[in-house]
Amino acid sequence: MADRTELSELGEFGLIDKLNENTTIKNTSTIFGIGDDCAALDYKDKVVLVSTDALVEGVHFDMTYTPLKHLGYKACVVNFSDVYAMNGTPKQITITLSVSNRYSVEALEELYSGIHLACEKYGVDIVGGDTTSSTSGMFISITVIGEVEKDKMVRRNGAKEHDLICVTGDLGGAYAGLLVLQREKATFIANPKYQPDLATYEYVIERQLKPEAGKKTIEWFKENDIVPTAMIDISDGLASEVLHICKESDVGCELYIEKLPIDYQAARTLEEFKILPETGVLNGGEDYELLFTINQKDYDKIKTKENIHIIGYINDKNMGCKLVTPQNTTMDIKAQGFDHYRKNQENKDIKEK
Amino acid sequence: MADRTELSELGEFGLIDKLNENTTIKNTSTIFGIGDDCAALDYKDKVVLVSTDALVEGVHFDMTYTPLKHLGYKACVVNFSDVYAMNGTPKQITITLSVSNRYSVEALEELYSGIHLACEKYGVDIVGGDTTSSTSGMFISITVIGEVEKDKMVRRNGAKEHDLICVTGDLGGAYAGLLVLQREKATFIANPKYQPDLATYEYVIERQLKPEAGKKTIEWFKENDIVPTAMIDISDGLASEVLHICKESDVGCELYIEKLPIDYQAARTLEEFKILPETGVLNGGEDYELLFTINQKDYDKIKTKENIHIIGYINDKNMGCKLVTPQNTTMDIKAQGFDHYRKNQENKDIKEK
Repeated sequence: MADRTELSELGEFGLIDKLNENTTIKNTSTIFGIGDDCAALDYKDKVVLVSTDALVEGVHFDMTYTPLKHLGYKACVVNFSDVYAMNGTPKQITITLSVSNRYSVEALEELYSGIHLACEKYGVDIVGGDTTSSTSGMFISITVIGEVEKDKMVRRNGAKEHDLICVTGDLGGAYAGLLVLQREKATFIANPKYQPDLATYEYVIERQLKPEAGKKTIEWFKENDIVPTAMIDISDGLASEVLHICKESDVGCELYIEKLPIDYQAARTLEEFKILPETGVLNGGEDYELLFTINQKDYDKIKTKENIHIIGYINDKNMGCKLVTPQNTTMDIKAQGFDHYRKNQENKDIKEK
Repeated sequence: MADRTELSELGEFGLIDKLNENTTIKNTSTIFGIGDDCAALDYKDKVVLVSTDALVEGVHFDMTYTPLKHLGYKACVVNFSDVYAMNGTPKQITITLSVSNRYSVEALEELYSGIHLACEKYGVDIVGGDTTSSTSGMFISITVIGEVEKDKMVRRNGAKEHDLICVTGDLGGAYAGLLVLQREKATFIANPKYQPDLATYEYVIERQLKPEAGKKTIEWFKENDIVPTAMIDISDGLASEVLHICKESDVGCELYIEKLPIDYQAARTLEEFKILPETGVLNGGEDYELLFTINQKDYDKIKTKENIHIIGYINDKNMGCKLVTPQNTTMDIKAQGFDHYRKNQENKDIKEK
């Protein structure tokens, strides 16, 4: 065996880069593979989009506070979100499920009821899967197949100087919900008779346990003849995602802290945990909102649209990627997205802010 | 929580049926979903094929005797095999990998070197994936996308009375290899200084650790203008697969024990384990050969083809699915394929024969 490099030294993205450095494309039907939310395959008039995402017990979810139905729903939605992030429509999924014998059939039916609910709501077909046992825990991997007209596909690499940077919905809520659930779990372990009162955290907990994907936004784009210049879904946190767009598009950006959308309950919850709301918005993941850039010619169409917020603009690459404070000072945007192999360290970083 | 049904009561196929009983198809581009080796999607002139298969440490493979490079290779080949089983050509894969921190980067590179080797050999592009940590062990899920011309697609449901039943290569070898590897592991645990001599088991071990998929057979079909009436790959054992074809095609069959192809080393190894060679051929899985039926008009094309064996013929449904012994007695074919949730019981069944 050669020298040993620990996974923690590379982190998740480093590992993906490392593992894929020898990947080459051989088929003309492969427009592109790794490096965006989906792969794109060419089948004449349409582009077929393919993406895959896994949820692992103990890493992505904790059974002590995740209802199985919600888990099934979320496992689907996070995949649909990748297709919407290409301006596409999810059409089919395949599901791989690996579970230990400690789960009953009824438990898996509960999981599947969430999967079916999500597929029903988003109009997606379940077309295949593989169910196997595991020696411990649960593992769900879903592959989604979607489609988009060739000239409507939006990648991460099309943002141009002066484009407006927009985001849907509100951010930081899913992360705030996770903090509440983790605290409730710790309290419950210390005192099993403890009855949690989560009524005042309802919205942020729902954001964490039952996120939604950008179907309505994509439909609105179509109705209004808007094609964003670049787009990505916010799974790892706004800061990480905006840096992806800037890197792929070879541009810089300015984001205005006072424009960042946050829900009141999310802000209040983050403050309870001594986290600045803007830190939660920038670095908290799993909101599954869409971050996109549009040409200024579309400003009139978008300026009054409910649930879409203009949070900054694309700059020349040499200007860097900057956050602008209400006091008009600037600082560099740094990614502190969720990284499985560095989980403890990163959560510590976020909390220390 | 409702009444509890143990997974073991249903078994893998029962569980899949149960979980998918509410699955409906909503999109016109979905020709069909669950129930065959692949889902089929309609994109004008071609059918897009999608399939997914997972390998779980401790269930599908044992790290003590599985080289990581072979594991990566096999994880790909078992998926390609599903596409060939539709008479299609695999084109793209996505990979989900979940591994604990006990694996080093070099170990995963070794795994990926096998994945790249398989993709190179079979002409397949890696177009996406998701890499996450796990709390224990390794989990690999691969989704393959392939294509086939509409009028060349072969399903499980097209076998007709009088069709010939054919199989490629030889069977039982992968199961024999597994038995050897499991025995060597047990010996090694009892005596860590033990040096195994596996030279006389080389072929069966390779069949287990590094199987190949039916690329050449599918190419030969094309060159010779043959379209099988039904086809399936042999992952769970010949008996289980032939019953799948008969059930889906609503027919019966007769298989001749003396026609079943087995390699000499595989037969000798099975005998060493007190297993009848025909039992290993019928119930041992993981050979990834193709089982198919053809119309008798194609007999002249296939009769002298190396590596394709005619092992029986399709019968009327009312005649049942029968095995014919060399003494011309018949018995019912029973599936004893590999079932994760019934693993111990089934392996016991096989060994007791």
